[in-house]
Amino acid sequence: MARTSPFGLLVLFVGLALSNGVLALWPIPRNLTTGSTALKLSPAFTIQVDVPNAPSDLYDAVGQAKQYLENDKLGRLVVGRGANDTTAVQGAKTISTLTLSLEEGATVNSITDEARAKFEDRSEEYQLTIPDDGSAATLVANSTLGLYRGLTTFGQIWYTYGADTYTLEAPFDITDSPAYPYRGLGLDTSRNYFPVQSILRTLDAMSWVKINTFHWHITDSQSWPLEVAEYPELAQYGAYSAQDVYTEQDIQQILSYAGARGIDVLLEIDTPGHTAIIGTAYPEYVACMTESPWSTYANEPPAGQLRFPLPEVRNFTTNLLASIAKTMPSYYFSTGGDELNLPCYTDDPITSGYLNSTGTTINDALDEFTNSTHSALIGLGKTPVVWEEMVLDFNLTSLSDETIVMTWISSADAAAIADKGFRIVQAPSNYFYLDCGAGEWIGDDPAGNSWCDPFKTWQYAYTYDPLANLTTAQQSLVLGGEQILWTEQSGPENLEPIVWPRAAASAEIFWSAAQPGGAPLNGTEALPRLQDVRYRMVQRGLNPIQLQPQWCALRPYECDLYA
Amino acid sequence: MARTSPFGLLVLFVGLALSNGVLALWPIPRNLTTGSTALKLSPAFTIQVDVPNAPSDLYDAVGQAKQYLENDKLGRLVVGRGANDTTAVQGAKTISTLTLSLEEGATVNSITDEARAKFEDRSEEYQLTIPDDGSAATLVANSTLGLYRGLTTFGQIWYTYGADTYTLEAPFDITDSPAYPYRGLGLDTSRNYFPVQSILRTLDAMSWVKINTFHWHITDSQSWPLEVAEYPELAQYGAYSAQDVYTEQDIQQILSYAGARGIDVLLEIDTPGHTAIIGTAYPEYVACMTESPWSTYANEPPAGQLRFPLPEVRNFTTNLLASIAKTMPSYYFSTGGDELNLPCYTDDPITSGYLNSTGTTINDALDEFTNSTHSALIGLGKTPVVWEEMVLDFNLTSLSDETIVMTWISSADAAAIADKGFRIVQAPSNYFYLDCGAGEWIGDDPAGNSWCDPFKTWQYAYTYDPLANLTTAQQSLVLGGEQILWTEQSGPENLEPIVWPRAAASAEIFWSAAQPGGAPLNGTEALPRLQDVRYRMVQRGLNPIQLQPQWCALRPYECDLYA
Repeated sequence: MARTSPFGLLVLFVGLALSNGVLALWPIPRNLTTGSTALKLSPAFTIQVDVPNAPSDLYDAVGQAKQYLENDKLGRLVVGRGANDTTAVQGAKTISTLTLSLEEGATVNSITDEARAKFEDRSEEYQLTIPDDGSAATLVANSTLGLYRGLTTFGQIWYTYGADTYTLEAPFDITDSPAYPYRGLGLDTSRNYFPVQSILRTLDAMSWVKINTFHWHITDSQSWPLEVAEYPELAQYGAYSAQDVYTEQDIQQILSYAGARGIDVLLEIDTPGHTAIIGTAYPEYVACMTESPWSTYANEPPAGQLRFPLPEVRNFTTNLLASIAKTMPSYYFSTGGDELNLPCYTDDPITSGYLNSTGTTINDALDEFTNSTHSALIGLGKTPVVWEEMVLDFNLTSLSDETIVMTWISSADAAAIADKGFRIVQAPSNYFYLDCGAGEWIGDDPAGNSWCDPFKTWQYAYTYDPLANLTTAQQSLVLGGEQILWTEQSGPENLEPIVWPRAAASAEIFWSAAQPGGAPLNGTEALPRLQDVRYRMVQRGLNPIQLQPQWCALRPYECDLYA
Repeated sequence: MARTSPFGLLVLFVGLALSNGVLALWPIPRNLTTGSTALKLSPAFTIQVDVPNAPSDLYDAVGQAKQYLENDKLGRLVVGRGANDTTAVQGAKTISTLTLSLEEGATVNSITDEARAKFEDRSEEYQLTIPDDGSAATLVANSTLGLYRGLTTFGQIWYTYGADTYTLEAPFDITDSPAYPYRGLGLDTSRNYFPVQSILRTLDAMSWVKINTFHWHITDSQSWPLEVAEYPELAQYGAYSAQDVYTEQDIQQILSYAGARGIDVLLEIDTPGHTAIIGTAYPEYVACMTESPWSTYANEPPAGQLRFPLPEVRNFTTNLLASIAKTMPSYYFSTGGDELNLPCYTDDPITSGYLNSTGTTINDALDEFTNSTHSALIGLGKTPVVWEEMVLDFNLTSLSDETIVMTWISSADAAAIADKGFRIVQAPSNYFYLDCGAGEWIGDDPAGNSWCDPFKTWQYAYTYDPLANLTTAQQSLVLGGEQILWTEQSGPENLEPIVWPRAAASAEIFWSAAQPGGAPLNGTEALPRLQDVRYRMVQRGLNPIQLQPQWCALRPYECDLYA
């Protein structure tokens, strides 16, 4: 009985067809040439830091890069996982060194400081050359942050079979820099709490695909997990438990871990809506908390919003935001501003009484509130970030021109924001919300579905065009974008599989913007590379979801619709 | 500034309203009375086995039950997690002993043997009495399996706050037995492989909600992870790797672990469709393997089906199934039979040539094939199980009246199966498929959605009526049912959150069938109990998904639609 495998033959063919491809790289470098020569990584491979007064976080990054090189041990995603590569690898040269250096005249800062610089002051550019003759590879950049990005790329090209770690695509010549300065991932830690370790693992995974901003929606109506030195009652009464709190020490650990991975932390304290939990500590500052049904006063339970027109609430919120913002190293700080429920104020005697007695409209009160909070932030050197309603649903003269606006309701809303001249971060729910499609979580509603059905697959997210409907002049307003996880139905138990590898989709959209030759990004081309990302994540201990049966992962394109 | 919490007051009210409830129990016992007296569990609590010649797996179960009692440390799901219970607990009596015994005349078998008995020979009934005066609790059953179920119930009523483990609902008087003999969970280990440890954890979780059948869809077209002594080539060529194989030792470990937890293993070797991978070892036995597009010949890639009309393939399959079945202790064995693609045979010259030359119809060939495989299984003492197409799409005289038929395409199909007189296991995709709603996984199809959108939430699954559209006479044909995970987009990385606690929905439908007083099951009533299940699972180290923000979990009914 013959036992040759038709599948094996097929794969060999596909393998050849792809041998000049770039299966491993994500986000795909913007300028890239590869070859088809096998090259082995020396077991004694070293990374030399040729940077005068190199900062300690660069040495840490080099140490981490070496650990990945040693421990990834990723088998190539073909049937046999590289068993057929042994012949090619046998005669290959061995590379022993990668040398890191900065371009002449570059200032030496820590990766952390570079990652926290203003968008316009950041350089993530790098140049990576890997010869196929065994001579040293070189990585050159304008900044330690650029070197960090290049190290990440270097770590993506190697496979292991048996005792060999190798690439089949040497030589490499890469000149790379991001198309957009903001490439984020959003996480809500209020609906459900995530331990510090979960966040650190998320930061690791973000760094692997060059995401540079952790948009931390840290508080909301459900819980207040943030320790604030001047307002200890908020966490004391508003956290789910004494353990479900990010202490000052936790925050510092997360900031430091993020910075070392080239990630800025954009903290969001959502106001004046999404603040019911503040009422557990300050009941007189919050309206509609005990009203029923909740659905009249909020999009989800619990209802409750700051009585922001009241001077004492405005002052409290301003002091609170300033108190938090001054502990955050980023130049950017979000005050939220989504889903403000107006019937809550109409029906709240205290708020409506104040508005009536002072002859103030809700819009003017919001303008005054925003002026107060944003002025305080700007005074601390921060650039405010807000959700789209703040510019589309209200007329706020208080918003600085520098304000950054995040889209969420629809990808169609960016144009209207651009018409008002604001800079934009794209987080449209209809492409980028990672929680969509999980069904109804509200009780007593068995036939209900997710409000943003269906599930946003990686390949659908990947079709998103961040410049759609914008004029050429408006396109420069787009700073970038992010996928985001709202956590009504998520916790540490499912964080990794619900986020990864999907969140890599926007990472590539906003870094690469196009294929190296200039062709548009294409999900069919991208899938084998994303599988590579996923399987490498598994090797690094993460729990990314399976995108397909492994049969498909080992046979690029054979599970495509018309294959 | 006053800092009393309106939420705290609300919760106190709700807590009182529920104090006579049964928040902790799942599936809800069929006959149940509870009180409102606090009762403490002694730190020196012991479980006495008053069973002559008790089997070792009963002692193991007692040891496990004690471990849960000691380690669960679940805080009650109210704001404060039980802080307000301290007064009630202070004066409570302490219970020190639970005594297990069998009813007079009961035969003493191992839990394992009882779990593997024929449906009609199993007794899962138990009687559990927990007085509120500190005297010993008693658990009595007809079988060690019944004692195991009662131990599981006993483990669900305790909460921990500080140093105290307690219930607030003593005394308990429970007489319980399942409404249906088959309460399953299905898992596909072919699309993606699951390590033995993942399966063992799944069996643990199943046992916590009294699921008694692990429906193991072990092979399919994508991979053959099963070591078969007589046919080693199948795993050698068909497993994803040498590591992704269930060895004979693995199978024995899983069978033993399942048995000790009151779980029978229903193995499925899906034939004659869903068998492409057999072609890697036996290419001459499989049609359509290299045809393109795959979508003409299969519902998903890869195409490829056994050439079942050929005598040599019929004999091979019969021997293969018998070879596997004889190693399995269950009385039940599934030969699958879903989604047979007929164009594959029409277009395959070998199969169509054989059919033409012998003047055989595909239906008659399938009848002959089924007669061969099922006769072999019946000869081994097995009862065959098949998917619904085998009785609804074909006219197979070879099916024994004893055959058990699993629904899957639609909940509407049970009536037609019942009309033919077959016993039924309900696994309708439109209620019970755990993989639905995750979006398209086929490549090059960015706008595609899940074929069985939307996501089946626990609360939707929970509305399923297993007797719908059946006559009274037909109702006894329903053996039970199961939720099932097909793993195109799942692996060990997301197994626990995608299955749990959702799979508890069918566990209660098929154990309890109704509320203790006879009222229909009701998702609004059930949600707080399911939250309890979920949070206890977390305490036991599982990773069940969050069903709601924890704010809701701590405040029963406040996140209901009209709350």
